[in-house]
Amino acid sequence: MGKGITSREEDYSQWYIDIVKKADLAENSDVRGCMVIKPYGYSIWESMQQGLDKMFKDTGHVNAYFPLFIPKSFLAKEASHVEGFAKECAIVTHYRLKNAEDGSGVIVDPDAKLEEELIVRPTSETVIWNSYKKWIQSYRDLPLLINQWANVVRWEMRTRLFLRTAEFLWQEGHTAHATAKEAEKETLLILDLYADFVENFMGVPVVKGKKSEGEKFPGAVDTYCIEALMQDGKALQAGTSHFLGQNFAKAFDVQFTGKDGKLDYVWGTSWGVSTRLIGGLIMAHSDDEGLIIPPKLAPIHVVIVPIFKSDEELEKITEKVDVIAKELRKKGYSVKFDNRDTHKPGFKFAEYELKGVPIRLAIGARDLENGTIEMARRDTKEKKVVPFDEVATIIPHLLDEIQENIFQKALKFREEKTTKVDTYEDFKKLLEEKGGFFLAHWDGTKETEAAIKDETKATIRCIPLDSPEEDGKCMYSGKPSKRRVLFARAY
Amino acid sequence: MGKGITSREEDYSQWYIDIVKKADLAENSDVRGCMVIKPYGYSIWESMQQGLDKMFKDTGHVNAYFPLFIPKSFLAKEASHVEGFAKECAIVTHYRLKNAEDGSGVIVDPDAKLEEELIVRPTSETVIWNSYKKWIQSYRDLPLLINQWANVVRWEMRTRLFLRTAEFLWQEGHTAHATAKEAEKETLLILDLYADFVENFMGVPVVKGKKSEGEKFPGAVDTYCIEALMQDGKALQAGTSHFLGQNFAKAFDVQFTGKDGKLDYVWGTSWGVSTRLIGGLIMAHSDDEGLIIPPKLAPIHVVIVPIFKSDEELEKITEKVDVIAKELRKKGYSVKFDNRDTHKPGFKFAEYELKGVPIRLAIGARDLENGTIEMARRDTKEKKVVPFDEVATIIPHLLDEIQENIFQKALKFREEKTTKVDTYEDFKKLLEEKGGFFLAHWDGTKETEAAIKDETKATIRCIPLDSPEEDGKCMYSGKPSKRRVLFARAY
Repeated sequence: MGKGITSREEDYSQWYIDIVKKADLAENSDVRGCMVIKPYGYSIWESMQQGLDKMFKDTGHVNAYFPLFIPKSFLAKEASHVEGFAKECAIVTHYRLKNAEDGSGVIVDPDAKLEEELIVRPTSETVIWNSYKKWIQSYRDLPLLINQWANVVRWEMRTRLFLRTAEFLWQEGHTAHATAKEAEKETLLILDLYADFVENFMGVPVVKGKKSEGEKFPGAVDTYCIEALMQDGKALQAGTSHFLGQNFAKAFDVQFTGKDGKLDYVWGTSWGVSTRLIGGLIMAHSDDEGLIIPPKLAPIHVVIVPIFKSDEELEKITEKVDVIAKELRKKGYSVKFDNRDTHKPGFKFAEYELKGVPIRLAIGARDLENGTIEMARRDTKEKKVVPFDEVATIIPHLLDEIQENIFQKALKFREEKTTKVDTYEDFKKLLEEKGGFFLAHWDGTKETEAAIKDETKATIRCIPLDSPEEDGKCMYSGKPSKRRVLFARAY
Repeated sequence: MGKGITSREEDYSQWYIDIVKKADLAENSDVRGCMVIKPYGYSIWESMQQGLDKMFKDTGHVNAYFPLFIPKSFLAKEASHVEGFAKECAIVTHYRLKNAEDGSGVIVDPDAKLEEELIVRPTSETVIWNSYKKWIQSYRDLPLLINQWANVVRWEMRTRLFLRTAEFLWQEGHTAHATAKEAEKETLLILDLYADFVENFMGVPVVKGKKSEGEKFPGAVDTYCIEALMQDGKALQAGTSHFLGQNFAKAFDVQFTGKDGKLDYVWGTSWGVSTRLIGGLIMAHSDDEGLIIPPKLAPIHVVIVPIFKSDEELEKITEKVDVIAKELRKKGYSVKFDNRDTHKPGFKFAEYELKGVPIRLAIGARDLENGTIEMARRDTKEKKVVPFDEVATIIPHLLDEIQENIFQKALKFREEKTTKVDTYEDFKKLLEEKGGFFLAHWDGTKETEAAIKDETKATIRCIPLDSPEEDGKCMYSGKPSKRRVLFARAY
């Protein structure tokens, strides 16, 4: 905490902001609600993109790019969709500036008013289905499995770096199918893919489930999601996959001729994850000393810090270290050798701890004599001295172990913080005292859902897919219920 | 031309549009001036991004992300910059829609007017230098070598797919340095990098040069560019690299303390290439049968078309072909086996010709007996039958040969179409009759430059870096000139 990071216990929100800033991940810009993603933060996003993009392509998806702007009339075509996004969108109304006649500077040219206003995309269903209308005539044109990497804008009033910003980066998949069954299968395929990515790359365990009617995407028939638990006991929705039914096909009149020669509307899905995942990554694993990044997403896997008193010593160390660095790089790991003479080793140790580099190696004159090197792991802070000749062989295994340990730790935490409750009293009490996920019975009505949200700020995160049938009574209304749903306060 | 492609001779513009559409690269959207980049076109952009991104990183650059929106006051800070972009920008003025009271639909909520209008970035110098002000205090913070992959918007009135659209994708580098010399070095380093990419990946030879005062970037001290020649004899500016001097540092008050303890303004560069390169790629190489894509950027390197009369035959072919496909994929090539039974081989041949796949293999029952396969290259349309066992060894060499041949062909074309002229009469005559690049003397004044442009529609593309000193007289004014400059009509 000497690094100016507030502890989690003292103030979790401030701790989060401190980590984002001190680790140089992102900052607020002077443009309302928009963030600047700094190089170190962006490199984590690049790792995420690479991992996800490969998974999309391996499952038959291709990338494309659609316009940033959505004519107002497009947005208006799907009733619940426009309802959902109208209140938070950036609207382009003019296309030219000019010099003010009074010499006071540049002003919007009133003569350059657009006939129809353009909305900066909050999501692209409408503009994409408008294209699909031209692309789809027959069952032979289906399925269409398209993804887009893009920026989107939602005019959030209260923003928070990575978690909620007016502009953010994401991917949005938009697929079109000949049957409801196929589209539903795609929706769940992507849900599994997201869960796989978040658990195995990010090391964050998730609950897969279906959203309640009140929480689903505007324009979807069903919204599926993955929900993760943060260290402060709050939930984070980490990704969503929507079964759109024929809603957008009907709104944009996208019909196809089936094998049987009959015309029918196309079935759709859409799904996305965003730079919000970086926020989730931080909040799930990091500690009071800084970031903890799982090796699979770490921009730097291994940092090597030389401890030297003279140029000669540094030279000898460099020679030795080059061997390890080369060997590790050949295996595909990112290795940084920090030989700056402007900073002391202790300073560097703290810096890489802050930045969450999984493994730190330190080597000095005595190590050279002994043929050893000091190896420290970020996740457990364990240090040990290992034979120099073995270190390049040890590291790949250790990185796997760190990846696994980070996940297991988060899993254990989630298990401890998941509570079955049967009465509303217990729920309210434990929500305050313990936080986390709660499995409780719910009568299935939006009135009960709204009342609980109103009284406790907790929402139904999802109806877990693996939730077994179980006769019970709604903790709020006492009405009968067939299965437990997942409640939590959420980001 | 059975594929509905207008020939180049008949109508070059229409030929270009036909290729873009028939090869499924892109299309105009219903959003004014914006294009949809379709999956096949986008995969070429992905190849370009990969190639460039690696080159940027290998030269020490890192990626980051800055806001889409630029407050009007930022844009106004650099006088010539705002002058250059004010007339073609999309302006966000409101942040909410609402239901019209008369029930006529959604309208812009007049109560949600922004205090300060936001410009959708046409380029990001201003918003980035506003951040650099916070990031740079000392010479230790320099250089900053940052690149951004992003979408930008310039409100073009006459658009053309890939070449000029309201929204396009690009990368923009923005670097900051302690000395003018270092910034100039960076400007030229990137110019060389761009030339290397365009020549060695895209197979398009370029002339490196400096823009005249009249053609330089609004806000730059010097603009360098690479100019390529298209098959219709017109030039295409393929990339620009700007030495910004201290202009943006002064506009945004970005000063640093030097090693000597003195305060000084930071020196800057910016540079970019865009999806326009895809237009250049098409126009430089393709023919009346379709695209020709150099192997280094081809989404598919090799397509294999089976010729079969029964499922049994297909099965035998598949078994055989799998061996080659596996071997080539292991070497990093993208191989497609098109075993559709809904289309005839002839149809497939034409399709892959249209899509510019560098090598096509065809294999039928007789080939199975003979242990052979037919190999056709797209660039020269040569076909030959080769022993089956050798094909996987031949292909990597052949792809290299194709890459080189495409470049050499374009180079030869450019050499034939580059003319030294000494009189304005000759210039005007040959510009009409022959087209291409013209090396001519110019008196260095913007009046002459403007007059020539006015009378001939040809512009000074650049003052070539390798143009030798040579005493001469301006072809227009007769005034003395020290070196020839490059004239052409341009996209």
